[in-house]
Amino acid sequence: MQRHFDEALGKLKDMVFRMGDLVQEAIRKAVDSLEKRDIQLAKSVVEGDQRINVLEIEVDELGHELIALMQPTAVDLRFITMVLKINSDLERMGDQAVNIAEKGIDLCGDVPAAVELGIPTMVDLAIEMVRESLKAFSERDAQKAKSICERDDELDDLNDHVRTKLEQAMHAGALRFPQAVSLLMVAHNLERIGDLATNIAEDVIYVAKGIDIRHHITERREK
Amino acid sequence: MQRHFDEALGKLKDMVFRMGDLVQEAIRKAVDSLEKRDIQLAKSVVEGDQRINVLEIEVDELGHELIALMQPTAVDLRFITMVLKINSDLERMGDQAVNIAEKGIDLCGDVPAAVELGIPTMVDLAIEMVRESLKAFSERDAQKAKSICERDDELDDLNDHVRTKLEQAMHAGALRFPQAVSLLMVAHNLERIGDLATNIAEDVIYVAKGIDIRHHITERREK
Repeated sequence: MQRHFDEALGKLKDMVFRMGDLVQEAIRKAVDSLEKRDIQLAKSVVEGDQRINVLEIEVDELGHELIALMQPTAVDLRFITMVLKINSDLERMGDQAVNIAEKGIDLCGDVPAAVELGIPTMVDLAIEMVRESLKAFSERDAQKAKSICERDDELDDLNDHVRTKLEQAMHAGALRFPQAVSLLMVAHNLERIGDLATNIAEDVIYVAKGIDIRHHITERREK
Repeated sequence: MQRHFDEALGKLKDMVFRMGDLVQEAIRKAVDSLEKRDIQLAKSVVEGDQRINVLEIEVDELGHELIALMQPTAVDLRFITMVLKINSDLERMGDQAVNIAEKGIDLCGDVPAAVELGIPTMVDLAIEMVRESLKAFSERDAQKAKSICERDDELDDLNDHVRTKLEQAMHAGALRFPQAVSLLMVAHNLERIGDLATNIAEDVIYVAKGIDIRHHITERREK
């Protein structure tokens, strides 16, 4: 019974990491499709989200099955509910990647190449935050998780920077308003991915230290 | 034991409805503060979010306590996990209300009164969706829940309408870019509230019908 339970917990963890890989790939591809004006690549992100959605449901079902059938101890229960939260955060990140890809489809061939907006720096940081938050979860490393929460401010600053650049590009006549709005939303989507990675990091700290810091870090909010 | 459990379930449900009331009030106040240029009202929304956050943690803890200590049946477990999801959705709505209030603080006295943007229509619909989704949950009414999912498209259309109005106002010189961005984000926040209400409605349908429609309704995505 215990061995079966441990195996199932391991499987649950593996599934969440697979989701993490798919999500990071989707974010990268979505921004690439925007930069390279590659509609096919953008469409593959939209279609690929189905795999992430199916995996989310599978993780959700396995997690609830384990709670219902195995009646886990308090520690294992806390672990499973954390996995379920991470699962939901990762699925939401996948949604954000789709949003970015859709902006890529809308904008295709319609973004002035000369406009250097700082979006690539945002995407690098966002993906790093996702990767590191899952690593912190895997290693139960509260210190690493804490440093992710701090980096979220950096991402917010980069978002402000992109907004300023967009305004300048509009005033210079290099961007029209609907284009600026689409790129603004891409920056917002990347900021949301950072928030969701921060959610994961906060859960890691919560479980490691047994405290709920979620609402003590006032910067971390749904935006 | 069973009576104690039923009482605890009832308490959990009451707490979630109290959260729902606080959240609807926060959304209404946030938009009012924007329209009336009332900084004090906006600040009261930001400060009041702490109550919602504390209540979220209390619901979360009571829910997990019930799962761990009472080892509920599959049906009760499903109900508790649904309450935990609704709890999280409501807390995120509270965050959106804070975002709107903060835009109110940023913009205070700086929005041309003549600009009719359609935001009041959006807020009425968003609050209605929140109220009805909680009613559908309370009455386990899948039909009502389904109609909420459909209304989400209406809210998306209103968001597009606001964007067009903002563009027109900018071109007419009635709005500057940073103001337009702030109001754009307010409309986006209201759209997110609609998405979160739709999440609740989908969970109601899921539990009532035992099917997972979450990823069949392609419109419902984190934006």
